[in-house]
Amino acid sequence: MEKVNLVIIGFGGMGSYHVELAKMSEHVVPVGAFDIDEKVHEKIREKGLRVYRSYQEVLADESVDAVLIATPNDVHKKLVIRALESGKHVLCEKPVTLNTTELKEILAVAEKTGRTFMVHQNRRYDQDFLIVKRMIQEKSIGDVYRIESRVQGANGIPGDWRHLKAQGGGMVLDWGVHLLDQLLFMVDSKIKHVSANLSFILGDEVDDGFVSTITFENGVTAHIEVGTTNFIKLPRWYVLGTNGTAVIRDWDLSGEVVIATENLHNSQPTPIQAGQGLTKTMAPPSEEATETRALPAPLEMETSLYNNFADVILKQATPIVKNEEVYRVLTLIEAIFKAAEENKVIENFDTI
Amino acid sequence: MEKVNLVIIGFGGMGSYHVELAKMSEHVVPVGAFDIDEKVHEKIREKGLRVYRSYQEVLADESVDAVLIATPNDVHKKLVIRALESGKHVLCEKPVTLNTTELKEILAVAEKTGRTFMVHQNRRYDQDFLIVKRMIQEKSIGDVYRIESRVQGANGIPGDWRHLKAQGGGMVLDWGVHLLDQLLFMVDSKIKHVSANLSFILGDEVDDGFVSTITFENGVTAHIEVGTTNFIKLPRWYVLGTNGTAVIRDWDLSGEVVIATENLHNSQPTPIQAGQGLTKTMAPPSEEATETRALPAPLEMETSLYNNFADVILKQATPIVKNEEVYRVLTLIEAIFKAAEENKVIENFDTI
Repeated sequence: MEKVNLVIIGFGGMGSYHVELAKMSEHVVPVGAFDIDEKVHEKIREKGLRVYRSYQEVLADESVDAVLIATPNDVHKKLVIRALESGKHVLCEKPVTLNTTELKEILAVAEKTGRTFMVHQNRRYDQDFLIVKRMIQEKSIGDVYRIESRVQGANGIPGDWRHLKAQGGGMVLDWGVHLLDQLLFMVDSKIKHVSANLSFILGDEVDDGFVSTITFENGVTAHIEVGTTNFIKLPRWYVLGTNGTAVIRDWDLSGEVVIATENLHNSQPTPIQAGQGLTKTMAPPSEEATETRALPAPLEMETSLYNNFADVILKQATPIVKNEEVYRVLTLIEAIFKAAEENKVIENFDTI
Repeated sequence: MEKVNLVIIGFGGMGSYHVELAKMSEHVVPVGAFDIDEKVHEKIREKGLRVYRSYQEVLADESVDAVLIATPNDVHKKLVIRALESGKHVLCEKPVTLNTTELKEILAVAEKTGRTFMVHQNRRYDQDFLIVKRMIQEKSIGDVYRIESRVQGANGIPGDWRHLKAQGGGMVLDWGVHLLDQLLFMVDSKIKHVSANLSFILGDEVDDGFVSTITFENGVTAHIEVGTTNFIKLPRWYVLGTNGTAVIRDWDLSGEVVIATENLHNSQPTPIQAGQGLTKTMAPPSEEATETRALPAPLEMETSLYNNFADVILKQATPIVKNEEVYRVLTLIEAIFKAAEENKVIENFDTI
């Protein structure tokens, strides 16, 4: 096998997007798609793909090597397990499952069948994230001790199964899983404490946003936030290091780094009038005390997620998204739900 | 008595500032000052004030009606009680005491002596705060459900007793007391939960900043934050309402309000490329869905804090800063210290 023939399962917004992603890879060939909604069959044909009439038909097709699962979250488990048991490799959209119990079942089947199972945590490739990851690695603002990662919109929850609890809706599972995966992919430390508040401003049964504070044993504190009722955005990233601060305002990568110069502790800031009082503490540092720099370039990833998926299948390469990492993110999501529901700080849950 | 003759106790940064504040009032006359540091005596004279040689001399002077206490925090209690027992009225700098036990002692003496005791929570007059207070009252962005109030600097803790635990140093007591006093002055609800993280980036024995999440029974969540190692600032205020968002960036009152129009739920945002994925959720709302407005004018306060202090003494007016409010802020500060130290969410502490 030189190429991986892929069929896309679920041809909604993300499914059609995956055709383009797969086409850009060297070793994965999108050959068909299946969707229970016959209205999208024409769209599948327009992409030059074969329309499968049933999931069984996909799994029975010996020319198919792998499937990409982009259905609502609650059926991931069932579809993934059937595919693995039919000898197919599987790439699955996030969130992989609704909870760790479901994921364990999948991982057991993957092990038994010897098929490749990977999760499409594509935001590990986001350029904004890879800038922050580089700053942490290269200590360009000193030791990073606080990471604030936010995505905020004003459009509410998009209008389908994402409103429903049974189907794995809500923003913790939708966007939270990305931000948490990014966080754990760049902070190399065990988690100490997790606290969280969910928001229910829209009156849905699922969360329309959340804020979580996660502290790590190495001293890093993370503030992770998703909002869908925010008419003004705070910056996408706000990162504090012992020697400076970095901000990335938006997906366009606008932002900057301000670092301390050696003059910081010798020079006196001029007190400013701040509301009713004078303040030296909150005054801007004197001009020679800091220096503004451009953001560094993003870290480069060796290969794309689709190429890596093929390499894992064809050459036993190491997966970029490891299943134990995906599992750990799900345990963190469960901790966030528990912390919010019981109004408590979750301790020492990071035992895997 | 038509005028209140005031002596300032402690002539550091805040003490000299109080001379100007008192001079602007109609009924308070700054007549003298006392400081144990003889080096500032010349500064006192330059302001046209009498230099007292001892606290005893101030208290024994029958022409003195009131004292303003602007010493380090740990000696507030002792000085306030001696003044009240000598028949003087007292205006005291914040934080009033290091804990509620000390404040209770003061309040008992104030009651026994019948003298006026007030705390100088001057940031209730900050224009940025009074804009937010107005938005909450007038519901101009709908029902406010999240208030983020931050002050961030990069200059560390100012260089004196504010570094020392025994003297009541640290940022929770210094700036936190202002932000918490403002919060409780504008949110009319009992507190449900308090969680907090302190930061110790500078290696001091006291906190150099903190983040606290405070939830209220009426559904409001507050994020209160002070930082002294932040080289880039986030906005001073970020306020979410059911119908819009407001931001006040800095003390200069720059900022705006973005509110939903009636078209919000009829119009479709255009998905944007955001990092590795397309997103409708985090896309800007379509143009007709929102409207940007100027911030409202600040609420007007009826009278200044110094005038009110005099009115309370001379005419039994109602104090703008009530002692039960000051007490409640101190209980909240104690909850923040406890939540941070024990890594837990404090529940139902708001029982006064």
